[in-house]
Amino acid sequence: MSGVWGNKIKLSIFGESHGKAIGIVINGLEPGVELDLEFINSEMERRAPGRTKYSTQRNEKDNFEIVSGFFNGKTTGTPLCAIIWNGNQHSKDYSNVKDFARPGHSDYTGFIKYKGFNDYRGGGHFSGRLTAPLVFAGAVAKQILFKDNIIIGSHILSIKDTKEKYFDKVNIDSETLISLTKKAFPVLDDKKGEEMKEVILKAKNDLDSVGGIIECCALNLPAGKGDPFFDSCESILSHMLFSIPAVKGVEFGEGFNITKMKGSEANDDFYTKNGIVKTYSNNNGGILGGITSGMPLVFRAAFKPTASIYKPQKTINMKTMENEEISIKGRHDPCIVLRAVPVVEAACALSILDII
Amino acid sequence: MSGVWGNKIKLSIFGESHGKAIGIVINGLEPGVELDLEFINSEMERRAPGRTKYSTQRNEKDNFEIVSGFFNGKTTGTPLCAIIWNGNQHSKDYSNVKDFARPGHSDYTGFIKYKGFNDYRGGGHFSGRLTAPLVFAGAVAKQILFKDNIIIGSHILSIKDTKEKYFDKVNIDSETLISLTKKAFPVLDDKKGEEMKEVILKAKNDLDSVGGIIECCALNLPAGKGDPFFDSCESILSHMLFSIPAVKGVEFGEGFNITKMKGSEANDDFYTKNGIVKTYSNNNGGILGGITSGMPLVFRAAFKPTASIYKPQKTINMKTMENEEISIKGRHDPCIVLRAVPVVEAACALSILDII
Amino acid sequence: MSGVWGNKIKLSIFGESHGKAIGIVINGLEPGVELDLEFINSEMERRAPGRTKYSTQRNEKDNFEIVSGFFNGKTTGTPLCAIIWNGNQHSKDYSNVKDFARPGHSDYTGFIKYKGFNDYRGGGHFSGRLTAPLVFAGAVAKQILFKDNIIIGSHILSIKDTKEKYFDKVNIDSETLISLTKKAFPVLDDKKGEEMKEVILKAKNDLDSVGGIIECCALNLPAGKGDPFFDSCESILSHMLFSIPAVKGVEFGEGFNITKMKGSEANDDFYTKNGIVKTYSNNNGGILGGITSGMPLVFRAAFKPTASIYKPQKTINMKTMENEEISIKGRHDPCIVLRAVPVVEAACALSILDII
Amino acid sequence: MSGVWGNKIKLSIFGESHGKAIGIVINGLEPGVELDLEFINSEMERRAPGRTKYSTQRNEKDNFEIVSGFFNGKTTGTPLCAIIWNGNQHSKDYSNVKDFARPGHSDYTGFIKYKGFNDYRGGGHFSGRLTAPLVFAGAVAKQILFKDNIIIGSHILSIKDTKEKYFDKVNIDSETLISLTKKAFPVLDDKKGEEMKEVILKAKNDLDSVGGIIECCALNLPAGKGDPFFDSCESILSHMLFSIPAVKGVEFGEGFNITKMKGSEANDDFYTKNGIVKTYSNNNGGILGGITSGMPLVFRAAFKPTASIYKPQKTINMKTMENEEISIKGRHDPCIVLRAVPVVEAACALSILDII
Repeated sequence: MSGVWGNKIKLSIFGESHGKAIGIVINGLEPGVELDLEFINSEMERRAPGRTKYSTQRNEKDNFEIVSGFFNGKTTGTPLCAIIWNGNQHSKDYSNVKDFARPGHSDYTGFIKYKGFNDYRGGGHFSGRLTAPLVFAGAVAKQILFKDNIIIGSHILSIKDTKEKYFDKVNIDSETLISLTKKAFPVLDDKKGEEMKEVILKAKNDLDSVGGIIECCALNLPAGKGDPFFDSCESILSHMLFSIPAVKGVEFGEGFNITKMKGSEANDDFYTKNGIVKTYSNNNGGILGGITSGMPLVFRAAFKPTASIYKPQKTINMKTMENEEISIKGRHDPCIVLRAVPVVEAACALSILDII
Repeated sequence: MSGVWGNKIKLSIFGESHGKAIGIVINGLEPGVELDLEFINSEMERRAPGRTKYSTQRNEKDNFEIVSGFFNGKTTGTPLCAIIWNGNQHSKDYSNVKDFARPGHSDYTGFIKYKGFNDYRGGGHFSGRLTAPLVFAGAVAKQILFKDNIIIGSHILSIKDTKEKYFDKVNIDSETLISLTKKAFPVLDDKKGEEMKEVILKAKNDLDSVGGIIECCALNLPAGKGDPFFDSCESILSHMLFSIPAVKGVEFGEGFNITKMKGSEANDDFYTKNGIVKTYSNNNGGILGGITSGMPLVFRAAFKPTASIYKPQKTINMKTMENEEISIKGRHDPCIVLRAVPVVEAACALSILDII
Repeated sequence: MSGVWGNKIKLSIFGESHGKAIGIVINGLEPGVELDLEFINSEMERRAPGRTKYSTQRNEKDNFEIVSGFFNGKTTGTPLCAIIWNGNQHSKDYSNVKDFARPGHSDYTGFIKYKGFNDYRGGGHFSGRLTAPLVFAGAVAKQILFKDNIIIGSHILSIKDTKEKYFDKVNIDSETLISLTKKAFPVLDDKKGEEMKEVILKAKNDLDSVGGIIECCALNLPAGKGDPFFDSCESILSHMLFSIPAVKGVEFGEGFNITKMKGSEANDDFYTKNGIVKTYSNNNGGILGGITSGMPLVFRAAFKPTASIYKPQKTINMKTMENEEISIKGRHDPCIVLRAVPVVEAACALSILDII
Repeated sequence: MSGVWGNKIKLSIFGESHGKAIGIVINGLEPGVELDLEFINSEMERRAPGRTKYSTQRNEKDNFEIVSGFFNGKTTGTPLCAIIWNGNQHSKDYSNVKDFARPGHSDYTGFIKYKGFNDYRGGGHFSGRLTAPLVFAGAVAKQILFKDNIIIGSHILSIKDTKEKYFDKVNIDSETLISLTKKAFPVLDDKKGEEMKEVILKAKNDLDSVGGIIECCALNLPAGKGDPFFDSCESILSHMLFSIPAVKGVEFGEGFNITKMKGSEANDDFYTKNGIVKTYSNNNGGILGGITSGMPLVFRAAFKPTASIYKPQKTINMKTMENEEISIKGRHDPCIVLRAVPVVEAACALSILDII
């Protein structure tokens, strides 16, 4: 079923890129949580286009309007709905190729699923713009988690072949995570960051695009949360992450790399000190048997290169069923990884809120 | 919520490794589907322990008993429940270390979640044995999908560092998939398979364990199935796959590798021939915008090395909260990847049944 | 979980009476359904206040704004969100008694549940005004059902002690149902209707209120829809109906009266004619074993008298926990049954859409 | 979706009357709850057939077998599955009329829904026998509620036209409720009870059947539980109650009778004493705005007369589509109300567990 997600909380997302508005309803929030709207704004800003030369020059208005569930500065406990009005769409950019299936996009699959009735403009309901309501909801979730000292942060692990070091899954600290959320280009090693920017600019100049990997971490989760079957922490998180357009892979802890280790290397040995249980290593990324161990939650999401590129591509006209060539116009991100960082964090925050 | 999964179909799983029985209830099956019990048995056999020297010597009885929803050889459309009785448990193998948290296992997280009341014997509800009911349900799903010519098959892509070639994501054919399901050690290249077996035996001799990657493919899915938010095909599949014990990563199409490609390389150009729409490449693994494209569905799941190893490991006694050393006894798989193959296929079959 | 309902379709409702807006998201609609906005408006009008002297003189704006899921006059198949902006609220009417629990209202229970953080103005999220989005959604559902010739209509069976005759559960026809939906005061017997109006006006003059029973019927449902456990047609319908404020009883077919019949009277004998299966009587109201029989679906919902009355009542101040007396001001319906008719039909239409 | 119910807890029911077994999986139970199996047995006994001359002489074995989720006498927190094996079925009683749709039964609607593939014997999945697993689950729920001093009890309010007095919805006490659960024929007034028994015996002698109304009460619920939309307490309860075969009406507090009251009579005035909030009357049955008020929860369920009667009835042969006459053989309850009492209490207990 499109549009609804969650158990303890339930999200209901709606909207099309060039329709009147996009938005989200969040059910199951506890009452009395003071919301810092400035913080929400700053999170929206992190995702918004038009800020840097590494992303699209579209200047979408991402101003949200909370229309329910919020009273006297606090959550009421009833469904909280936020609306983000659309504007500044260049719909005519799309009209001449509206029957062409852009490669790498959902044009074709959406056309089949919705029998040609979906709003094709700007990707419609499939647009990356739909992640704006997710970031809104994530910013609400983050504030609720803050109260329990749960901190979420992430960095760009790689852009194309340019990769920086991984999080130290055992020793990563809150300060590092928080400082990353405040960086314009969140990397652990700024020199590597500069290289990544070069890769993005080169792709832009080549009328091409690149992808990359985001690594995200959440600290201070209580142990014992999640379920064996079928709502493991990994299941809940990956379900949400794979809803984000362009994500093609998700891994926890050492992820695919753990398959190259021996059991004696992969197993995270336990120890206890001052009544606290920890593991020497954290190859499992803070999750054992689908349940939080209390160690840092660490995962990575792989983003494919932006599907919209200016180079001519082969495709079909979905109505005439003829083979065609398409050259995409409009303003597009040469790389969506940077803008996806707060989206991944939102997915993480919402998943944790649903789990704990 | 533990135990329930699905939208169009709903699974409800239950049982502990050393309890009376394990089983599953499948809701939402169409009525009148003839079930080949021999086929189900053969699928159960693929997962069952004790068959080869590459897996555990435990000889569990995986005989299933259908107690409802099945009449005159056909599904009735009402909930179908299958029970697999337990037997041959060596519960005493565990008693002396029952308060020790085995590294890499869910002992500690389960202890916290269930406050010490869960059945610890043999991993209890967290046991890999719980995948037997999944394989049962998957074998039912496979037969329903067969009727629409949907074929599922998979191979062991790697064991530790030993890796064979990937599926040809464009040209893979039904015959290859079916023949893989009949192989004792399902690989595309049997020579590579022999090397993998060596790796497993070496780990066994070293009292250690290894993991690996399973690549799975489903052919002939109709285009247009799945949802953008939040029930993308990737979301549905990964939710189920990450419920399987030991899975730490899931990727679709080129997966993490797609992050290293340029947009012009990653995009799958469309063409049409004889009224059928295809793509020249299939880097997206048959899914665009969360929705099936009609191209082969291809994904990979990363399995960590078996957590139960015979080497001494550091751990804690969960009751006394003292640091201890543990040497695991009992009979364990040096590598669970081989036995996990039908489980991954079951997860795939059940997910497809839920999506289409 | 507050706010979300349904299986095949999913509704997500939001809003408070005196907040910015109320609205609803409808998931799971098929694409390509042409929506007659005039029809939706006319349904909204039936529920809107301020039309007759039998209801409140408040003149709320119930103009809806569809912000997503609707393109070129048709449903797109993606989530359809409609917003109804609030206005004309006399919030100050409530301020002096905001800590007083109005008898018969949810003030006290809402205060406890939401720990005092809910928007108390005008009943907040509990307000009857929240039924406006339901009527919107119901008007959409009705149009989808029209295509399959499924017709829904209802009449006011009783106001207080004044009761007219029941539907003829076997022979009720579409014309009668449709004509009822066009009546300002929908009764089968207009003379009885005049008596009911007298009862309402008397209550109004007495500064008191009255309730009544609505009987609803749906024709031309296909047989074989619904489930035995746990989603019987009665379960789905009653779940929705008991969400409507003021409903305290729901019954199907002969309902409570069937308990006074003998089995030989209650059983609906079958017969077949021209290949169509019918029953001579319809005491089961078109549902057997939770599943539609193809006979007219008939049910009744009992509405309590409007809780807001002008007479002084005993109550408590929820903050000071002192006993108090309250005299409710503002503009309230002396009877909400008339305005509830389209709400009941909406609940019926949405339930059927979810079932078939 | 057939078979699954609940939010905080999830039930999954399965089985057919004359299949191998019936059973239920309960998800979401807290770990560490000691279960008194004797108590569960005694609840099963209350529903079991063959105990009195007021019910069927079938002597079904209702012995349950817990196969998971229960360890060392306590719940583990993992899915608890209980199986009740079938036996003593007289399947041949049904074979000669298996294609005849018994009036008042689900034979016809089940035949259409399941396309003729469902197990028709003894009503199959529609059988009242399926309420046995519900009573099991209810007995578990009751024990969990006991710990919070929540007490559930009920009485037979009426059999056909013979009716006793209602519960005193304000003053009803635990002792009365508990004593009712221990009575062979639970009524407040035993003399009225004798009259009811006469009515049942007369129906039996007349080869006919009768129905009746059960009134149920739950004491000591915390205030503030339930939701406005769409999971009101009434919605949750009625959803479950209308899954019980033969229930055709559900009402809360004064129910349908409240429609005959004036607002000034119907409203339950509040008062507070010693810090506790109560209402002088309880016409709303302990629920306001869908949320518990802390006053006794009181509701009634209407049961139709047993559909299986020995008198000849008109019907159709579903396969030949010819009009026929049917005379039902076998052993059937002249009235199922008595055996339905623990089922209604189970539905109440499970609903409360899901709500609080």
